[in-house]
Amino acid sequence: MSDRIYLDWNATTPLRPEARQAMAAAWDTAGNPSSVHAEGRQARRVVEDARAAVAAAVGGRSQDVVFASCGTEANALALTPGLRRTSGEPVRRLLVSAIEHTSVLSGGRFSAGAIQTIKVTASGLVDLDHLRALLADGPPALVSVMLANNETGAIQPVGEVADIVHEAGGLLHVDAIQGFGKIPFEIKSIGADLLTLSAHKIGGPKGIGALVLTEEMQGLEPLLRGGGQELGRRAGTENVAGIAAFGAATKAAMAELPASAIRQQDLRERLEKGLNQTPEIIVFSEHAPRLPNTTLFTVPGLRAETAVIGFDLSGISVSSGSACSSGKVQPSHVLAAMGLDGKLAKGAVRLSLGWSTTETDIDLALEAWRTLADALLRGRRNTA
Amino acid sequence: MSDRIYLDWNATTPLRPEARQAMAAAWDTAGNPSSVHAEGRQARRVVEDARAAVAAAVGGRSQDVVFASCGTEANALALTPGLRRTSGEPVRRLLVSAIEHTSVLSGGRFSAGAIQTIKVTASGLVDLDHLRALLADGPPALVSVMLANNETGAIQPVGEVADIVHEAGGLLHVDAIQGFGKIPFEIKSIGADLLTLSAHKIGGPKGIGALVLTEEMQGLEPLLRGGGQELGRRAGTENVAGIAAFGAATKAAMAELPASAIRQQDLRERLEKGLNQTPEIIVFSEHAPRLPNTTLFTVPGLRAETAVIGFDLSGISVSSGSACSSGKVQPSHVLAAMGLDGKLAKGAVRLSLGWSTTETDIDLALEAWRTLADALLRGRRNTA
Repeated sequence: MSDRIYLDWNATTPLRPEARQAMAAAWDTAGNPSSVHAEGRQARRVVEDARAAVAAAVGGRSQDVVFASCGTEANALALTPGLRRTSGEPVRRLLVSAIEHTSVLSGGRFSAGAIQTIKVTASGLVDLDHLRALLADGPPALVSVMLANNETGAIQPVGEVADIVHEAGGLLHVDAIQGFGKIPFEIKSIGADLLTLSAHKIGGPKGIGALVLTEEMQGLEPLLRGGGQELGRRAGTENVAGIAAFGAATKAAMAELPASAIRQQDLRERLEKGLNQTPEIIVFSEHAPRLPNTTLFTVPGLRAETAVIGFDLSGISVSSGSACSSGKVQPSHVLAAMGLDGKLAKGAVRLSLGWSTTETDIDLALEAWRTLADALLRGRRNTA
Repeated sequence: MSDRIYLDWNATTPLRPEARQAMAAAWDTAGNPSSVHAEGRQARRVVEDARAAVAAAVGGRSQDVVFASCGTEANALALTPGLRRTSGEPVRRLLVSAIEHTSVLSGGRFSAGAIQTIKVTASGLVDLDHLRALLADGPPALVSVMLANNETGAIQPVGEVADIVHEAGGLLHVDAIQGFGKIPFEIKSIGADLLTLSAHKIGGPKGIGALVLTEEMQGLEPLLRGGGQELGRRAGTENVAGIAAFGAATKAAMAELPASAIRQQDLRERLEKGLNQTPEIIVFSEHAPRLPNTTLFTVPGLRAETAVIGFDLSGISVSSGSACSSGKVQPSHVLAAMGLDGKLAKGAVRLSLGWSTTETDIDLALEAWRTLADALLRGRRNTA
C-alpha cells in the first residue's frame, strides 16, 4: 500500500523504524521478566529501559509508570474510586468531560450513579464554569479531562482545569493519548495526577499503553490481579517487545517534537486553506487551540461514509471522526456535546497528518476533496 | 545468549520463526482494525485470520475467540458472575482448585465471600470428591480447573471435572495455558465452557492471550469497556502484530504437536533417569499424568534459589516453580496444596523443555545438577 496516502494518523500511526528495531531486538529476549536467570534479567532490562524513556518523556519517575495493554486499559485502571494523594481525601465520584474517549466515558470502576458529565463549549473546550459548579456540590472527585480531543484536535485547558480541581480537593486524570508526541508537556506542567499514554499514536505498536502517576498518588487498585508485575499494580506477563518498541518510539517522537509539530502545522494550514475554497465549509473547533496535525470538517449535506469511501477509492485514507469504536458509523458524541446539529455531525470528516505527510499528499487530498465536493454540490442542485 | 541452555519453557518460550515473520508482516499494516479504509481493512484481515487459526486449534468458532492482552487478563475476563448457558442458570459463586495460577486464585470479579477452594491430592490432582461436596451445597457455580499445572506439569482430570460440574448445573472454565501446544485437546473434548490460552507459552510473543467460549455461553461482562472491539467483549485497539504472531505460532505448534510431545517426553525421561541417580531425589507428581516437558524435583536440604543461581552460573536457565510472580522467591502454593512440607517445597526446581531442547542440553543440565548435588551433600555432611 505504499502508493496510498495515509491521513488517519489520529487513529493509528505507522510503526517507526526505531520501534521496529526495538521489537526485533526484543524477539531474541526469550526470558520472562519475572524470571531470575540471565534471560529473565535481560527481559527485565528491556522493560525497565523503556519505562525510563516513557517516564522521562513526561517528566515522571520510572516507578510511577504502569504499562498496560492499551490506552483503554490504562484509562480503566486510572478511574479508580478511592484514589488519593498521600495526605489527601480519597475520591468518591467521577467527573468526565462530555468529549472524552469512550473508554473514559464508560467510567472505569465508578458506579453509574457516581459519574457526572462536564459540558463543553461550542468550540469543543471543557466548560470551566460547569466544572466549578459540579465540584462545588459533593464529595472529593476524580476529574478526567483529555489533553486534546481525538476528533477535533481541540487542546483542552488542562492547566486551568487542574487548578480548579485541586482547589476543590479533587484529583485530575488526563488522557494524553492524542496530545503525546504532538505538543510538548509534562505531567506536572499540566497539573495531572494521573496521565494516560498509548504507543500506537506516536509510532509504536498497537496494543501497549501506560498510566503515569505522580509520586504522591495512592490507592490505585489493580484491574488485573495475580502476579506481582508492575509493582503489584498490573498483573500479567509483560508485552516485552511492545514495551521495548513503545520506549523506542517515545524517544524518537520526543527527539523530533518541536520540528515535527511546526512542519505538520504548516501542512495543516495548506490543507485548510485549500478546504476553505469550498463554499459553506465548516472546520470544527477552528478557533480553539488545536493539535497541529488535525482537521475535522464538513459541508452541509455531506455524508461522512460517502466521503470516507470516496477518499479511500482515490487511495487516500481518512476517517469519519473517531475510529476507536467498532467500525460502525455512529454519530459523534464529541460533536453532539458541542451542540452541533445531528445532520451536520454525521458529515464530519477527519484528516490527521503525521511525520511522513508531504505537501504532495495534501495537494492530492485536496484534489480528491474537490471532486467529492463537486459531486455533492451537483447532487444538491439536482435534488433542489 | 546463544551458548546458553534454556530449560524454562513453562515460564516463556523463545519466539518461533513463523511468529517473527507474522509480526514483521503486521508492521506494515499501519491501519487500525476499526477503520473502514483500506489500511483498516487490511489490519482487520490480519486479526481475523489469526482468530480463525486459534479457534481451529481448539475446535471453537472464530466469533467465540476473544483476544486479551495476556492469560491473566483472559482469566480475569472469564471469571464473571452471571455467566450462563443459553438455557441455563447464571453462576453465582466460584470454585477454584488450590493449584490454579494466581490470576485465577484472585477470583476475577467474584467477591471474596463467593469463592471456595477445591483441594488437590498428594499427587497434585484436583480432588473430585471434594469438588462434588462443594458443588452439592450452594447455587450454580463456575468451576475453574487448569488443564495442566505450570509447576508440576500434572494434567488434571478435566473431562471428569466437566461431567461433575455440568451434572450439578455449573460451568467449567479451563485455564489451558500450560497444556496448549503440549497435549492435544479441543474445547468440547475436555468439556470446557470457557478456555484460556496464551501465546508466549507456544512460541508466540509475550503480551497476548485469548479466551475461547462455547457457542452457548452468555453473560460475559467486558472487563475493558469503551470501543466495540472483540464483538463488544473487550474494548481497546487490538495488538495487531501480537495477534498475528499468536495465530502463526498456533499453526506451527499444532502442526508439530504429536511429534514434538513424543520427542520432549523422551528427553524428559532421559533427564529424570539422570536425576534419579541422586539419592533421596523427589520428582513431584511423578506418578500423575504429566505434560511431556516438565520435571519439578528436589532433594531434602536443597534451597531452590541456590540451585537456580547455580544452574544459571553454569549457563543453564531453570526455575524455582512458577515465574509468574514478581521475581520474589515465595513458597509454592501448588506444593503447599499437595500437603508437602514447607522446607521441601522451598527446594523445588523446575526444568521444562521445548522444541529446541536437545540430548546435549539434557546431559549438560544433568552434569550441572550433579555438581550442585555433590556440593549440597558435602554441605550436609559438614553440618551433620
